[in-house]
Amino acid sequence: MSILTVGTVAFDTIETPRGRAEMVIGGACTYASYAASYFSNEINLVSIVGDDFPQVEMDALADKGVNLEGLEIKQNAKTFFWEGRYHENMNQRDTLATDLNVLDDFDPQLPESYKSSKYIMLGNLTPAIQQQVIDQLDGSQKIVVLDTMNFWMDVAMDELKSVLKNVDVLTINDEEARQLSGVHSLVKASEIIHEMGPKYLIIKKGEHGALLFSEGKIFSAPALPLAEVFDPTGAGDTFAGGFIGYLAKHDTVDFSHMKKAVIYGSVMASFCVEEFSINRLKTLTAEDVNSRYETFVELTSF
Amino acid sequence: MSILTVGTVAFDTIETPRGRAEMVIGGACTYASYAASYFSNEINLVSIVGDDFPQVEMDALADKGVNLEGLEIKQNAKTFFWEGRYHENMNQRDTLATDLNVLDDFDPQLPESYKSSKYIMLGNLTPAIQQQVIDQLDGSQKIVVLDTMNFWMDVAMDELKSVLKNVDVLTINDEEARQLSGVHSLVKASEIIHEMGPKYLIIKKGEHGALLFSEGKIFSAPALPLAEVFDPTGAGDTFAGGFIGYLAKHDTVDFSHMKKAVIYGSVMASFCVEEFSINRLKTLTAEDVNSRYETFVELTSF
Repeated sequence: MSILTVGTVAFDTIETPRGRAEMVIGGACTYASYAASYFSNEINLVSIVGDDFPQVEMDALADKGVNLEGLEIKQNAKTFFWEGRYHENMNQRDTLATDLNVLDDFDPQLPESYKSSKYIMLGNLTPAIQQQVIDQLDGSQKIVVLDTMNFWMDVAMDELKSVLKNVDVLTINDEEARQLSGVHSLVKASEIIHEMGPKYLIIKKGEHGALLFSEGKIFSAPALPLAEVFDPTGAGDTFAGGFIGYLAKHDTVDFSHMKKAVIYGSVMASFCVEEFSINRLKTLTAEDVNSRYETFVELTSF
Repeated sequence: MSILTVGTVAFDTIETPRGRAEMVIGGACTYASYAASYFSNEINLVSIVGDDFPQVEMDALADKGVNLEGLEIKQNAKTFFWEGRYHENMNQRDTLATDLNVLDDFDPQLPESYKSSKYIMLGNLTPAIQQQVIDQLDGSQKIVVLDTMNFWMDVAMDELKSVLKNVDVLTINDEEARQLSGVHSLVKASEIIHEMGPKYLIIKKGEHGALLFSEGKIFSAPALPLAEVFDPTGAGDTFAGGFIGYLAKHDTVDFSHMKKAVIYGSVMASFCVEEFSINRLKTLTAEDVNSRYETFVELTSF
């Protein structure tokens, strides 16, 4: 089934304890689209870049079955840029630069053919823009997944709560779940967040895995312990792409499929962090994905 | 099979965001023994208390099948006392008082009948005393499990490394694993710690569950997300008691049994935190334990 991925396509400069990568390809929408491409060849991407974005990278996305009709290329403008440095524990990072560039004018207009996309992945953006995308959909969607972050809770909580009314799955981290709900217990937080709209809540805990909550049911997925994490950038977006990719492939939205989708999201994220940027996601084979899934089965079965 | 539990039997005064409990029963050996008592009725306890320790509490332990021949009662002396206050997140706590009292003179002498105990649980104590217990064993043991903490790594690393040579299973938390090994990656840390002696390493991550490492194999166990954590005191010791209890009950030491033992440890820990002190562990039924085990199966199956 068709997937709509909305979010940033970016340049990143990244420093981790393992090395440094300058002006490499990044962006939530890029990571999510690559991850989803292992499950679907009907991915409709919505984003904006400047005319500095390399054609070869657009071709690479297209080769993965990603429809770029919704990628606006703004002339005489620069692509969104982010620079960050990770600490030794890789869970903490300092943002050194955020140049919004084209993102400042992002006014997503969905191509007609996109409006009936069935599986919607709204990457982290201002809640108002996320809502603007939802407003253009034709109402035939199977599921709307939204990713957000603490920044929007600080500066645009009302807009965020408004868009959440139209969302089926919310993906945030544990501290964000606590901030959004105002309570510490994640079980209680999930109940409060369900009341806001999302029937499903996914709490991403980085190296500690992820929790899926829905209607009193809980599923706990591990992260794969890795000998070496090279670059955590994009892991959450890659998770989201694998998650929605699996759902779209099987075209069934229930708790049982959601659980497997969370595992496939974790599988894709575990590859993402093995190399800088989208490098590992580009070279992945279906066999790699299936083999890593079996590793997750072994990791959790008792 | 017979279990030997060694560690503190204590009075605790505990303050959590949910309430306060004064001079209640605590101690690593107490928690571990209660937890193990749901799997075995052959538990040999080794500890020391003052003559202020209530007879009714010793009777309660004996009622659970705990052999108190190795519990030294020192006259005109006070039982070990710990006072702590937990922060809102329950992962952090401040120690307000630590009165070693009788623990200062703890010189464990194993009763003859204890020396052939098959499953050994050495609770957190000075490494020298842990070694002293090992030295009294008759060599017929199936497994020796040792719990320790960062404090001993700070002040007695050499003694700790020395006792680790005689240990099969080490239980520590993630920060302690990093401190002991000197590396950040838990996968690499496990390899370094295996070289120190323990064939099995269990990394306890509190609300994030536990990891079991052995010979390149990894098992990830979740913690049960709870609506309310009442008092985390003793959760790690309760985990250890459930873990060794399960192994002793099935009298098989391999990775497959270890995985189930980690789940049963997590089951017991999930009860421990529901009430202050050992209160919940005292009232538990076999049905409660089995039902909670099924909850863990549901929580992790996909």
